[in-house]
Order: sequence, then structure tokens, then C-alpha cells
Amino acid sequence: MNRQQLVEVIKQRKTFLCVGLDTDIKKIPAHLLTAEDPIFDFNKAIIDATAPFCMAFKPNLAFYESLGVKGWVAFEKTIKYLKANYPQHFIIADAKRGDIGNTSAMYARSFFEELDIDSLTVAPYMGEDSVSPFLGYEGKWVILLALTSNKGSHDFQLTADADGERLFEKVLRTSRKWAGADKMMYVVGATQGQAFEGIRQIVPDSFLLVPGIGAQGGSLEEVCKYGMTKDCGLIVNSSRAIIYASNGDDFAEAAAKAAEDVQKKMAKEVEARMI
Amino acid sequence: MNRQQLVEVIKQRKTFLCVGLDTDIKKIPAHLLTAEDPIFDFNKAIIDATAPFCMAFKPNLAFYESLGVKGWVAFEKTIKYLKANYPQHFIIADAKRGDIGNTSAMYARSFFEELDIDSLTVAPYMGEDSVSPFLGYEGKWVILLALTSNKGSHDFQLTADADGERLFEKVLRTSRKWAGADKMMYVVGATQGQAFEGIRQIVPDSFLLVPGIGAQGGSLEEVCKYGMTKDCGLIVNSSRAIIYASNGDDFAEAAAKAAEDVQKKMAKEVEARMI
Repeated sequence: MNRQQLVEVIKQRKTFLCVGLDTDIKKIPAHLLTAEDPIFDFNKAIIDATAPFCMAFKPNLAFYESLGVKGWVAFEKTIKYLKANYPQHFIIADAKRGDIGNTSAMYARSFFEELDIDSLTVAPYMGEDSVSPFLGYEGKWVILLALTSNKGSHDFQLTADADGERLFEKVLRTSRKWAGADKMMYVVGATQGQAFEGIRQIVPDSFLLVPGIGAQGGSLEEVCKYGMTKDCGLIVNSSRAIIYASNGDDFAEAAAKAAEDVQKKMAKEVEARMI
Repeated sequence: MNRQQLVEVIKQRKTFLCVGLDTDIKKIPAHLLTAEDPIFDFNKAIIDATAPFCMAFKPNLAFYESLGVKGWVAFEKTIKYLKANYPQHFIIADAKRGDIGNTSAMYARSFFEELDIDSLTVAPYMGEDSVSPFLGYEGKWVILLALTSNKGSHDFQLTADADGERLFEKVLRTSRKWAGADKMMYVVGATQGQAFEGIRQIVPDSFLLVPGIGAQGGSLEEVCKYGMTKDCGLIVNSSRAIIYASNGDDFAEAAAKAAEDVQKKMAKEVEARMI
């Protein structure tokens, strides 16, 4: 999916919500556990329920890998289900990969060629040649970690160099030379609300993937105030607050309701800020 | 495997070689491709051939994930084969993971509980709470990326802060507070030979996992000169130069020969530098 298509979808559907499929076998409703593939069944129900209110889905690889081969089967089935039934929804593989060139090339082959996923989260620590193998695919995106939503983001990401440039700012500035706003997005946590203003000075046009709304406590209003552009420029993720809104028989309806609540707020922001 | 056991194995067997199982379906000998699981068959042959000369094996997850479910099956079979037949060999899952706490906890569950692997490579960008979930396992190790062997290591890892401390040095210094030399190792590329002297001032006792010997051009002698301690403190990895030493019918013998050549050099270093 290219940038223009992404912006169109957001404008038309008035949502920039991404539903995070952090599907944990220990947290899904008990009545699903007797099924052959409870993880996939849960995902399918959540996807069908929330698709009207979101424009992206983000399976987090850790949750699938933790189940070994069974988890990978569920992950691949989820991707195929999304591509077959919701081709207009953007798919983010939240994998936070990044390795030396020949290894990153293997990951790119896996996620972009075999699975035909739209985008992948990538860690910047190993620099350009760990990221560039992901950039050679038409219509595919790298989503580079910049300023994350966790407490540990303070350990290294905020360290300033001799000129006062903090590491996450250096990541933003340096990586802009590797790819433009039509190929690269950045992860910026919603818990870092006031940082969005400075970030927009460095990457005025780039899409930002924003986790941290919901369970982690970030504010949608603040993120929009400081981070939204006329092309929207935001994909805001919510995982736990939506997919575990209920763990009873009504889990799918509860997820739909939680997603709709967010979408309504987003519609107002789209109407107010996108021209 | 705890630190004392690790040091004992190295002393007795006079090797600190790790064989990297970067098994690429496009590079393995053609005669294996008709088998049901060529990746596992290749690994099994390489493991049996090189085990006498190494003390660790390091499958790189990217190479398995790129094959989807089939790759995960081959990965799990490889781990089970190692644990059943070579329980004295240290196993490193080269995964370069690192995510917010609840996600890192899922990875820890996967690699340390389900698969019972000895150690996992972890990226430091997201800070303490992304690393700490891996530290609660007796006899298990985190191998944190510090100074990598690729060209891109210069992009961010060498950036100095206002006090002149470079990012990789900050990672070393900060992470020492999270865990000691009995729980944490560091990735330091062999291509950065002269850096080992400075690194030893920050982490005098920690084991370093050293990629970059062989295909990437690093020097074993230089690494030992500047990085070796009386407890060895080094695990030196070679992947392509060993496993692809030949791609004919003799690939296993060629791999054994390549591993033995390195081991002979290592025996001299062990005799000279470990007391």
C-alpha cells in the first residue's frame, strides 16, 4: 500500500486506528481454548468485529513465536485471512528486527515476499546497512523505532550528543537520508506527548506509528494536537484495551465497542485537522 | 549453563569457537534439497562434523523465519537435536529481540522456557525494561548488542555524548547495573579489533560474543590480544566461513576442517592466556 492510498483510506473511513493483535493464549476467553487453533479463532473474531473502525492491524510477533510452530501457523493464517478479506487494511508485522545486511535481507524476504505484509517494525541500533535491505520493496514500509513508549526509552534514546542532539533525534535525522516519507515511518510512543512537536520539526511529513494509547496511558488528544498533519501522519495503535475489553463470551462485541469509541474521537480529529 | 561450567568447557576442550547456523536454503548443497527437511539435515551434518572443535552453536533466527512454518520446524528440531546429543554445547539463539516489557516476557518464555535455550541476543535500544524480563532465568544468559561488526555500527553506536561517552560504552556501563558477568554477555564485532582494549576497561569480566571472524574479515589474534581474560571471556563466532566451506558432497568434512583450523589457533591462545 503506497502513501496516497493510505491517506485516502484514512480520509474516507475517518479512522487512523491500528488494532494490535497481541494475542496471548493465557488471556483469551476460556471457551475458545477447546478449538483446534484458538489464537486464530480469537484473531478472526477480533478482526471481523473491529475492522469497520480501524485501518490497520498489527500482530506482534512475540506472541506468536512464544508458541513455537503452532504460533507461526496461527500468525500465517491470520495474515492470509486479512489479505483475503480486508485488502484495504494496512498490515504491520511488529517484529522489531534489525541485523547485519545479509540477515536483514532474510527477514525482508520472509515478511515482504513470502507473507506480502505491508510493513515491518525495525530497530535502528545497527545502523543503515541493517535497515536498507527492507527498503527495496515497492509499496512496502519500514517502521523504524525512534522514541518508544516504555520507561526504558529514557536509558539510551534521550541521551544527547555533544551538540545536544538526542539519540532518537539522530535516528530520525540520519534515517531520512536512507528513505523518504513514502517508504519509512517511525515509532513514537503516545506516552511522550510533548515530544511530538519537536519530532514534527525533524520529520514533518512522515507517518508515525503511535503505541501507548490505552493500557499504557497515552492521550489521543495530545498526540493529535502535536503530531497530526494534513495527511494525518499518524497511525495510533491500541492492543490490550481493545482486544481484551472483555474476556467473556461477548469479547468480540466488547472489542468492537472499544474500537468504535476510539474511532469516534478520531473522526473528529480527521474532520478538524485534515484538509 | 552457568559461568563456571562455561569456563571449564573452554579450558578442557581448548576452544571458544561458536559455529553459526545461518542456514540458507539457497546456499546448501543441491543433493540435500530433495530431502524432506533439507535445513535440518544440513544442520545435523554440520553439527556432527564441527562439534569436536567448537563449544557453542548459534542458529540465526532470520534464516529460519524466512521459511515460515517449515523454518520454525527445522529450528525446533535443530535445538532438540543439540540438547539431546550435545548437552555440553552452549546454545545461542541469535534473534536480536527487545520490546516493551510484556512482549519481551513473551520472547523469554519462548526461548528460555519452551525451547530451553541457553542464551538469546537482545537489542538495547529500548532500555532496561525491554531487557530485564530475560534476566529472571537461572543459568540463562542475555547477550546484549554493544558494538556490532557491520558498517552501520558507525551510524549510532559510536556517537559520543556531552561527556565523550560513546553509545556502545553507555550501553555497557548502564547494563552492568541490570545484571553481572554471570548473566549478561555482549556482542562486540571482531572487525573492531582495537576497541577491545577500551571495552575491557568497562566490562573486565564479561563474556563477549564476537562475530566478524571469517567472511567479515576480523582477526582472531587481535581479538585475543585485546579481549581475552584468564576466564577466556570470549566466544568467537564463525558462520559462513565454516558452514559453506564447500557446497559439494564433502560439505561436512570441509566444515570440520575449517572449524578445526580455527580451533587449533584457539588452543594456542587458551594455553598462552588462560591460567
